[in-house]
Amino acid sequence: MARQNAFTQEEIDAVYRAIRERRDVRSGYLPRPLDDETLLRLLTAAHMAPSVGLMQPWRFILVRDAAQRANVHEIFVRAREAAAELYDGDRRELYARLKLEALLEAPQQLCVVCDRNSQQGHALGRHSMPETPAYSVVCAIQNLWLAARAEGIAVGWVSILDPLAMKKLLRIPSEVQLVAYLCIGYVEEFAPCPDLERIGWEERTSLRSVLREEFFDRPTKMGEIAR
Amino acid sequence: MARQNAFTQEEIDAVYRAIRERRDVRSGYLPRPLDDETLLRLLTAAHMAPSVGLMQPWRFILVRDAAQRANVHEIFVRAREAAAELYDGDRRELYARLKLEALLEAPQQLCVVCDRNSQQGHALGRHSMPETPAYSVVCAIQNLWLAARAEGIAVGWVSILDPLAMKKLLRIPSEVQLVAYLCIGYVEEFAPCPDLERIGWEERTSLRSVLREEFFDRPTKMGEIAR
Repeated sequence: MARQNAFTQEEIDAVYRAIRERRDVRSGYLPRPLDDETLLRLLTAAHMAPSVGLMQPWRFILVRDAAQRANVHEIFVRAREAAAELYDGDRRELYARLKLEALLEAPQQLCVVCDRNSQQGHALGRHSMPETPAYSVVCAIQNLWLAARAEGIAVGWVSILDPLAMKKLLRIPSEVQLVAYLCIGYVEEFAPCPDLERIGWEERTSLRSVLREEFFDRPTKMGEIAR
Repeated sequence: MARQNAFTQEEIDAVYRAIRERRDVRSGYLPRPLDDETLLRLLTAAHMAPSVGLMQPWRFILVRDAAQRANVHEIFVRAREAAAELYDGDRRELYARLKLEALLEAPQQLCVVCDRNSQQGHALGRHSMPETPAYSVVCAIQNLWLAARAEGIAVGWVSILDPLAMKKLLRIPSEVQLVAYLCIGYVEEFAPCPDLERIGWEERTSLRSVLREEFFDRPTKMGEIAR
């Protein structure tokens, strides 16, 4: 199947490598900041994401100011304490030991929001599924995440934050939706497996367990391959 | 900065190439189906996505049966007609000319849902932002989309569908959330720019227009570079 402009096997392998070796990084960030050119490459990758109706509803707020990062960290600490109340016993101890963010360490951070009322895209694809603009924003985040991994740059998605407090701090209008807050930076190395797996919080499941055919309640016939 | 195990420049370029050349494809699907091994490579890439608390809330329903695909197409036709009512004049004519899906052509399709009540991940990261499981599912979709592009396989995300009708058809329990329905298949070629841009539905915006610094209402100082 020699197709014009097909990816070479080496190119295909590189894409799968970025997918396989990408990690959600919450520790080990180095103080050296990314230069603007590198940051813009990552943001350009994000901006190339698919979007419903070509809406491009993502808005990126780059946070590099140390005082601003400390403010975000305070919002995290409060949300973390509130969440801790919900666990008991061993699980609560384990929760207390988790390193969940690098808000004081990562030199650059990105608040990613969705301008869900934007008229861009003329509402195409949003009538029956109004949540699709936020999904487009997540596609942009995953683009950035994989481009960053290829460049040896770590990303950590912090979701233990009160969206209302974050919106007030970053002066985000009420109709604009907070989707993600990302720590970004260089690291010495990427872990071979997810932190939450290593520390025993949760295990990775098999592909077979999440794969069905024709109906939600019909297991895949490809089960033996997809063990 | 020679780091052990760093990606080579060729590998980095390949990742950016997949991001740049990925398209949302709604026409030109070839009848030749993907073999199981190829499908499983794409699904494995999806299954390697990040997820909140390592929840892995994605469930994939592979749809290959022709009758089932025709049923989905009927649900699309009804949603498309309902949406057409919302446009007037030239925009309505343009809408009528859009090719929005390939449900009868693409030999394999994937319904991607979110098991948002799953106890996997022990609710980590979901207290303050309960919508994060759906975002993890979208990360999985974007992984699959980029892996597919590298392999010369097209993906088209169809969101003009009534979620309730889809859930009934595919026997998806009420608490499980429909996130996406994807057409997947080989194509002769990938378009150089998005269909919606070519046909004049919407334009691609500049990175500068979506980039802010420190606050939502503060334009980036990197503006000259990010034109």
